[in-house]
Amino acid sequence: MIAGEEEKVENKQVIFKGYIDGVPKETDMELKLTKIELKLPTQAQGTSALLVKNLYLSCDPYMRGRMRDFHGSYIAPFVLEGFGVSKVIFSDNPNFKAGDFISGFTGWEEYSFIHKTDQLRKIQPDHQIPLSFHLGLLGMPGFTAYAGFYEVCSPSKGEYVFVSAASGAVGQLVGQLAKLHGCYVVGSAGSKEKVDLLKNKLGFDEAFNYKEELDLDAALKRYFPQGIDIYFDNVGGDMLDAALLNMRIHGRIALCGMVSQNSLSNPQGIHNLYNLITKRVRMQGFLQSDYLHLYPRFLEHVSSYYKQGKIFYVEDMNEGLESAPAALVGLFYGKNVGKQVIRVAHE
Amino acid sequence: MIAGEEEKVENKQVIFKGYIDGVPKETDMELKLTKIELKLPTQAQGTSALLVKNLYLSCDPYMRGRMRDFHGSYIAPFVLEGFGVSKVIFSDNPNFKAGDFISGFTGWEEYSFIHKTDQLRKIQPDHQIPLSFHLGLLGMPGFTAYAGFYEVCSPSKGEYVFVSAASGAVGQLVGQLAKLHGCYVVGSAGSKEKVDLLKNKLGFDEAFNYKEELDLDAALKRYFPQGIDIYFDNVGGDMLDAALLNMRIHGRIALCGMVSQNSLSNPQGIHNLYNLITKRVRMQGFLQSDYLHLYPRFLEHVSSYYKQGKIFYVEDMNEGLESAPAALVGLFYGKNVGKQVIRVAHE
Repeated sequence: MIAGEEEKVENKQVIFKGYIDGVPKETDMELKLTKIELKLPTQAQGTSALLVKNLYLSCDPYMRGRMRDFHGSYIAPFVLEGFGVSKVIFSDNPNFKAGDFISGFTGWEEYSFIHKTDQLRKIQPDHQIPLSFHLGLLGMPGFTAYAGFYEVCSPSKGEYVFVSAASGAVGQLVGQLAKLHGCYVVGSAGSKEKVDLLKNKLGFDEAFNYKEELDLDAALKRYFPQGIDIYFDNVGGDMLDAALLNMRIHGRIALCGMVSQNSLSNPQGIHNLYNLITKRVRMQGFLQSDYLHLYPRFLEHVSSYYKQGKIFYVEDMNEGLESAPAALVGLFYGKNVGKQVIRVAHE
Repeated sequence: MIAGEEEKVENKQVIFKGYIDGVPKETDMELKLTKIELKLPTQAQGTSALLVKNLYLSCDPYMRGRMRDFHGSYIAPFVLEGFGVSKVIFSDNPNFKAGDFISGFTGWEEYSFIHKTDQLRKIQPDHQIPLSFHLGLLGMPGFTAYAGFYEVCSPSKGEYVFVSAASGAVGQLVGQLAKLHGCYVVGSAGSKEKVDLLKNKLGFDEAFNYKEELDLDAALKRYFPQGIDIYFDNVGGDMLDAALLNMRIHGRIALCGMVSQNSLSNPQGIHNLYNLITKRVRMQGFLQSDYLHLYPRFLEHVSSYYKQGKIFYVEDMNEGLESAPAALVGLFYGKNVGKQVIRVAHE
């Protein structure tokens, strides 16, 4: 036995094997068993680094974007990265101490060294709010919903709001915020189970299964005989084209993610943009990262709504790092019901 | 001879024969010789109607839109309608008197009765400004440029501005306003003559002939190595798709008309909308009619710029109502150089 070997523990990792085209497959990733010494390496000391134990990892469609070969990609083959909730084990950083719970960018592995600590958030323990919610309701997807709805959609009470991928990590909060704002809200989703969730649990006025609609334009005309004021688009493609035919004058379209398109190297054409002119519609792409100054307000508002029981949040929790590749791939087939999270370790 | 017949004069008209698909053809219209009595008919008295002599008629791409069979169409077969500059001959309206020059909606004919007078504008005679400019620089197209540039594009000094159909009725003013605002401005047009006009007369920093470019994306990268902050789109289609690939972060796209697409019942797909998200771009369709409260300010600003020689305006003037159908059709093939106007009668 090599000296020091006895201090190491197992550190399972999800390795991204190489750049891809199309939808990610489980075989694009592999599990690797490595070992790690549970202390900050000598060379990390004085660098404000942390050693953390990862508790929850977030599966998000944007991760697909970095799987292409371009500037900003993962360096393949390498450990996948994404948002996670972690517990600090060792800290060389005065802002964090052992035992703190944090959320931020981490590795898809059991233990991670985090060198870039400026965007980590310390989580204030709150027994009413599950830790994993910091990846969803109170994390990037929730903030995307908040910034997108209030800052991009310019909503008014009584307006007609349509949300696609409405039971997803972002959509479910958009719809509930819109209801709290006094809007009429319809969501689309890809299964009966999701449609039931939208209508019976999440308070949408109406919801429909887009897979059962032969004509999306006709479906939207059925649910919005008066037309749509706000379309919060999470999917792009055919649904966007159909929504364009149903916008009201001075409507707004917030473009968020286009999950139906972001695995396609030759994305589908959108044919109905002319309606943006005749109806004087504003269509705006956005990223939550442009609105970080609103994060504290978001956290306060949405936590408060949640604690008051005014909003719900549905998670799809997979157990164990082994399940992570399949869960990530499942996003692109709509297998998740609610926000997809991986539990790596129990708190 | 019927009694009263001797008081009638000839009134040539352009008749729109019936609803169309695709690009309008000259044969979709016909000239008709009618006669008109040059006084307000008895039944028009007390209705605030005017009898006017039409001096100039405006050929505008939006006219194509009403040639389809839908609510808001022309009632076919009927006299075409459009913006014109006219001289009042008889007035039953206290706001207008014989001899006044007006601009507004009129018929494609020599003499018209105008019953809807609330949107007519009285032209203040100004020997420095040709009357026909009230159809272009100081009319709907000029105001489209003004409202679109200042209200939709949110321009800042030093930004990179691209204008398509840049020598057209709208584009030529957009580019000049952008230059006066301190922007870097490049225009595209469809002939060497137009490109020369943009560079040598209208003060664009650069201009190119899109028909000579095999790869519009490469052309835009050549003229905008730093990317585009503002794209004022007058054409849609391939140029819009190429511009989407070259937008800078937080760029703006104003959609105005889409002349390349508005004759197509199955418009071309736009494939690169995903860039709206990654670059957080706002794309907005607009119509000048939403901004009419700014019209007086526009008139003052742009007249003043013109009189000071700070802006130019290029008209393509056809002589005689007989030339009107071909001139209207020519718009859709880019035959006009500058704003297309028909002179029906000399002042």
